[in-house]
Amino acid sequence: MSLFDGLKNTDMRVKLPVVCFIWELAMIILFGVFIRYNPQADAHYIVNNSNTTYLNEFYFRYPSFQDVHVMIFVGFGFLMTFLQRYSFSAVGFNFLVAAFGIQWALLMQGWFGSLDYSTGKILIGVENLINADFCVASCLIAYGGVLGKTSPVQLMIMTLIGVTLYAVEEYIILTLLNVRDAGGSMVIHIFGAYYGLAISRVLYRPKLNQEKNGSVYHSDVFAMIGTLFLWLFWPSFNSAISNTGDGQHRAMINTYVSLSSSVVTAVAISSLTQKKGKLDMVHIQNATLAGGVAMGTASEMMVSCYGALIVGFCCGIISTLGFVYLTPLLESKLHIQDTCGIHNLHGMPGLIGGIVGAITAAAASEAVYSREGLVSLFNFNGAFANRSASTQGGYQAAGICIALAFGLVGGTVVGFILKLPFWGDAPNENCFEDNIYWEVPEEEEEEDKKSSLAGSTYVNHGNNKPAEP
Amino acid sequence: MSLFDGLKNTDMRVKLPVVCFIWELAMIILFGVFIRYNPQADAHYIVNNSNTTYLNEFYFRYPSFQDVHVMIFVGFGFLMTFLQRYSFSAVGFNFLVAAFGIQWALLMQGWFGSLDYSTGKILIGVENLINADFCVASCLIAYGGVLGKTSPVQLMIMTLIGVTLYAVEEYIILTLLNVRDAGGSMVIHIFGAYYGLAISRVLYRPKLNQEKNGSVYHSDVFAMIGTLFLWLFWPSFNSAISNTGDGQHRAMINTYVSLSSSVVTAVAISSLTQKKGKLDMVHIQNATLAGGVAMGTASEMMVSCYGALIVGFCCGIISTLGFVYLTPLLESKLHIQDTCGIHNLHGMPGLIGGIVGAITAAAASEAVYSREGLVSLFNFNGAFANRSASTQGGYQAAGICIALAFGLVGGTVVGFILKLPFWGDAPNENCFEDNIYWEVPEEEEEEDKKSSLAGSTYVNHGNNKPAEP
Amino acid sequence: MSLFDGLKNTDMRVKLPVVCFIWELAMIILFGVFIRYNPQADAHYIVNNSNTTYLNEFYFRYPSFQDVHVMIFVGFGFLMTFLQRYSFSAVGFNFLVAAFGIQWALLMQGWFGSLDYSTGKILIGVENLINADFCVASCLIAYGGVLGKTSPVQLMIMTLIGVTLYAVEEYIILTLLNVRDAGGSMVIHIFGAYYGLAISRVLYRPKLNQEKNGSVYHSDVFAMIGTLFLWLFWPSFNSAISNTGDGQHRAMINTYVSLSSSVVTAVAISSLTQKKGKLDMVHIQNATLAGGVAMGTASEMMVSCYGALIVGFCCGIISTLGFVYLTPLLESKLHIQDTCGIHNLHGMPGLIGGIVGAITAAAASEAVYSREGLVSLFNFNGAFANRSASTQGGYQAAGICIALAFGLVGGTVVGFILKLPFWGDAPNENCFEDNIYWEVPEEEEEEDKKSSLAGSTYVNHGNNKPAEP
Repeated sequence: MSLFDGLKNTDMRVKLPVVCFIWELAMIILFGVFIRYNPQADAHYIVNNSNTTYLNEFYFRYPSFQDVHVMIFVGFGFLMTFLQRYSFSAVGFNFLVAAFGIQWALLMQGWFGSLDYSTGKILIGVENLINADFCVASCLIAYGGVLGKTSPVQLMIMTLIGVTLYAVEEYIILTLLNVRDAGGSMVIHIFGAYYGLAISRVLYRPKLNQEKNGSVYHSDVFAMIGTLFLWLFWPSFNSAISNTGDGQHRAMINTYVSLSSSVVTAVAISSLTQKKGKLDMVHIQNATLAGGVAMGTASEMMVSCYGALIVGFCCGIISTLGFVYLTPLLESKLHIQDTCGIHNLHGMPGLIGGIVGAITAAAASEAVYSREGLVSLFNFNGAFANRSASTQGGYQAAGICIALAFGLVGGTVVGFILKLPFWGDAPNENCFEDNIYWEVPEEEEEEDKKSSLAGSTYVNHGNNKPAEP
Repeated sequence: MSLFDGLKNTDMRVKLPVVCFIWELAMIILFGVFIRYNPQADAHYIVNNSNTTYLNEFYFRYPSFQDVHVMIFVGFGFLMTFLQRYSFSAVGFNFLVAAFGIQWALLMQGWFGSLDYSTGKILIGVENLINADFCVASCLIAYGGVLGKTSPVQLMIMTLIGVTLYAVEEYIILTLLNVRDAGGSMVIHIFGAYYGLAISRVLYRPKLNQEKNGSVYHSDVFAMIGTLFLWLFWPSFNSAISNTGDGQHRAMINTYVSLSSSVVTAVAISSLTQKKGKLDMVHIQNATLAGGVAMGTASEMMVSCYGALIVGFCCGIISTLGFVYLTPLLESKLHIQDTCGIHNLHGMPGLIGGIVGAITAAAASEAVYSREGLVSLFNFNGAFANRSASTQGGYQAAGICIALAFGLVGGTVVGFILKLPFWGDAPNENCFEDNIYWEVPEEEEEEDKKSSLAGSTYVNHGNNKPAEP
Repeated sequence: MSLFDGLKNTDMRVKLPVVCFIWELAMIILFGVFIRYNPQADAHYIVNNSNTTYLNEFYFRYPSFQDVHVMIFVGFGFLMTFLQRYSFSAVGFNFLVAAFGIQWALLMQGWFGSLDYSTGKILIGVENLINADFCVASCLIAYGGVLGKTSPVQLMIMTLIGVTLYAVEEYIILTLLNVRDAGGSMVIHIFGAYYGLAISRVLYRPKLNQEKNGSVYHSDVFAMIGTLFLWLFWPSFNSAISNTGDGQHRAMINTYVSLSSSVVTAVAISSLTQKKGKLDMVHIQNATLAGGVAMGTASEMMVSCYGALIVGFCCGIISTLGFVYLTPLLESKLHIQDTCGIHNLHGMPGLIGGIVGAITAAAASEAVYSREGLVSLFNFNGAFANRSASTQGGYQAAGICIALAFGLVGGTVVGFILKLPFWGDAPNENCFEDNIYWEVPEEEEEEDKKSSLAGSTYVNHGNNKPAEP
């Protein structure tokens, strides 16, 4: 490690552009070879649908898609701005990684799920875009675990491999095993969290300078923008690819109810565990969302509103307790430095969500769902026509293990790749600082003092950097 | 009062968790006993609707619901962040109160409006979620009146009783009297504003320290996030539960037009009333929204676009003048300390909205609406089949009085409850400060000075607080 | 110019209210005379559509409209908050100008496009509101070019004339010439950018004080809110008024793909052109959006996903290079002071978008589109029934020239009007400062020092300004 430190060079001037150009050119070629519009988005659509354009998939998925899209870029991006001097990287690298990741996800998920075998083309429409956002979400969760400690090149590699792993894992779980996971408690949250934690473990920095690993007043308010948009649009996230009609409707209600419950218990535990009963912004920013994560699998099932309330109730508690007691232990005992606490927000609630989904599926009955409802919801068609609800429950449980395994093994491998000394990550003393990778507006002491004497209204933030160089 | 001051203890460590847990457990039990999915969200839906899932209520209400949802949590939450050191409480307590309130609102409004009498169950769907958000909006308006002066426990009590009162008032006005109020000028804004003002009156603090009752540069920019999302989504607010088709369409247009007009006049009056013609951010943040409040009742009616423009024109003026002249008078003469100026944004424009609605309803004619349109819009069916437009106008006016009475009487009673000395509200000298209830990132003078000498770029905001304890 | 400087008086107390009142009163009168609901929003709708309310235009356009609406007010507003002390003006004047502009646009565009000749009335519905937002977008782009240097009265004049020019230009291009431009690469971006640049040229200030023309840390984060909402909702912008069904679906996909590509190349070039490979926030805030601008014309065409990727790829590069090399040249050689770099974000990408559209249209074939698709997309009906694809390509190219001419000539004329000395623009030394036109929370040195000694947590931002005067 000390050897590696000596070699570190955080100058991105060659590495980052090279990676960006090579990968983007690859995307153009692969898109050219493989990607076409699906019939709902093709100009031939009108030939057979001139009187039923209102049935275009677009109208059933696009509002949900946009909500999910906001979550990925504004939600995740701003949630991570809480650090005092890492907001540019939080929101900026999130932007870069997600924008690249969705392209690669369209290809990877397309090969596994939307390939037209007669032509060899991937046919894409709005549902593919939602799935690409979902896929990228898992990589952004992992980013939360290593926030402040990685270079943008490392993040690009993490995303390239992460998206690849995700597509395989998702294919095994959702397609081969016919597991239901509309909001991705397993495929997104468990995978993403343990992928990030495994990477963070391998990249452990025993001498990490924690001085900048904390918030300032306004950065905490910025982070609340992320929290709120995640919280508000989580019902869309969990219902975006559910069956149209009652499926989307129910998934949205369950998630909404569960989320509202975890806010109340997160506040309660935050107050209970802090001296003088003061609330901690970290808990409010994160644990309030646990109810959404944990409804990712069961949201479209008949889990009942009070069931959703109980799930949110428990997850708000567990997640907050995780921040208070488990995160410090993870660092001291297991050497996992989890910057954003993704184990508390995505790891544990994801596991709970998977288990709740397995139980709910195993308990499904025709009395509650109707025969048609059961077949439709759990896709008991074709090869799965004879599967019983309890068997489905078993497969759901298997899905948890697979997601976990992909995350841990994949993350460990990626961790060792990222540990190679030439990716330009920051030395220990410059972690959590934007100014390694960003042109940060500079203070000028002399001018500040002068302005201060002259009664300037904003003395400490003055700078002369022109908007354009 | 001096006796009470002596007893005050702002430590929330026992009170707040106890209240949160008891109330959330009560929600779980009540949801378990009462709340079920309505047929549009139930898995049996497919049995009768397999070919018409596109007619599911979800598709007609969900985009509007999400807009309203953003208004409640981001809109109201960020609008109140304008205070220099109260942003955590503004956005955080807004979050807590709204998340709890929507649960209780689903129950209260359900008993009055969505009860299936054959089973005794409340059947919920997306429209109920919109109504729950509406209900909570009234409590958040009231929060604006007492912002900076109450403990979270007091806010929870305000919300519990506020939601209860709202449900009763709404049932009387909308159901028993068949008054139309789709965007809630009366049931939401008049009730909420006078509920909050009455509480604020009872909790009057003659020695309130106003030093922190003001904004800083960046807190004013944060508040504009709230303002803009409220302004942008207000057309959704006023059209969310209107009749599908032309009703929603027209309600949205009227609100959009009215809002655009109040921006222009709010700016004009702000410049006119300030020395040197400088604009005041308080007016831009608030009075620009008055046109939306005032279209709450009449938006779905054939009020005509120029009618909507006139309403917005007047309300932008009145609301801004209220901030300049009336708010200081309310404090000095009536001892009402209205932190956010809810009387100017919700009280007066709500009253105007109620009156405009009554006049527009009284003037409704078959020539303008068509017979079917009139029956459909004003629900002249069943017991109300023979009601004339002018009679409807009278009932609309009665609705104003009922909402006002519920707000004033309910608020006074709640005020005296909140005045009991053990709820943990802040002493006069600590009002408008987050650090009574929140762990606020701390400045460390020594380190700051050191960093400053070392040329640090952000000297005044440095702190060592780790992200997770 | 020195003469003019001497005459300058930035007091808005009379000018701004007078302009606001006169123009808003004119709006009320003109709305009263001309504007009515269209049949989709009129109460008579139910007479013929009681069973098909789900086909109301509202449901196909409203979610897109709201996305566009957010872009106009939050997107443009916050994108311009990047200046260190001009955030109030950025977001506030954007709000004023847009709110007034949409009213005038409803009228202007209505006279040219939605006039019912039998009654002489303009019939408006949701599509008109989208078009009004589009129209205003062009004026806000122009605002970006003069940001920090104009008074609100000048902006109101710029908007009044800009909207007027836009409506004429749009009528010629889209209606008379039957050019396709759903996302407005030509009618919105080219026109808006060159309108703003021409004004900026005429208003050239050789002695402009650039000291405040730069960002501070938090203002850059605020600007990212604008960037992200623009980026996220651009697919809605480019698809909002496309043909329903596959048209909207395809337009959205193309824009999404193009935008994702320009993020990657903007980051690459930003890193490549800065010393030490550090990223520049200005590029991330702006050039990432270039892919959306450049898909404005071709988005609804069968441009193919990899075609969209290539467009985004190129525009990300060109736009970033523009910020690095062209903007300084524009100022030094052509005396165009382009505060936000609108030439890089809207000018050049708009031109590229127009050209891509012309080529794609010229290459359109029945094999790719189907006969029905071709007729439907390019409106080869009525007078245009015999137009060939290649002819259409020629008309598309003509559209570019017309938009450019309107922008340059119109902007020059408006520039000279705005140069008259009585509009209250800031003197050179006070440009880029809010406190000429806004009541800015003031620092009080004495109190700050006192608080600082007392251990206050936020010493530099304290002020005593009450929320309401």
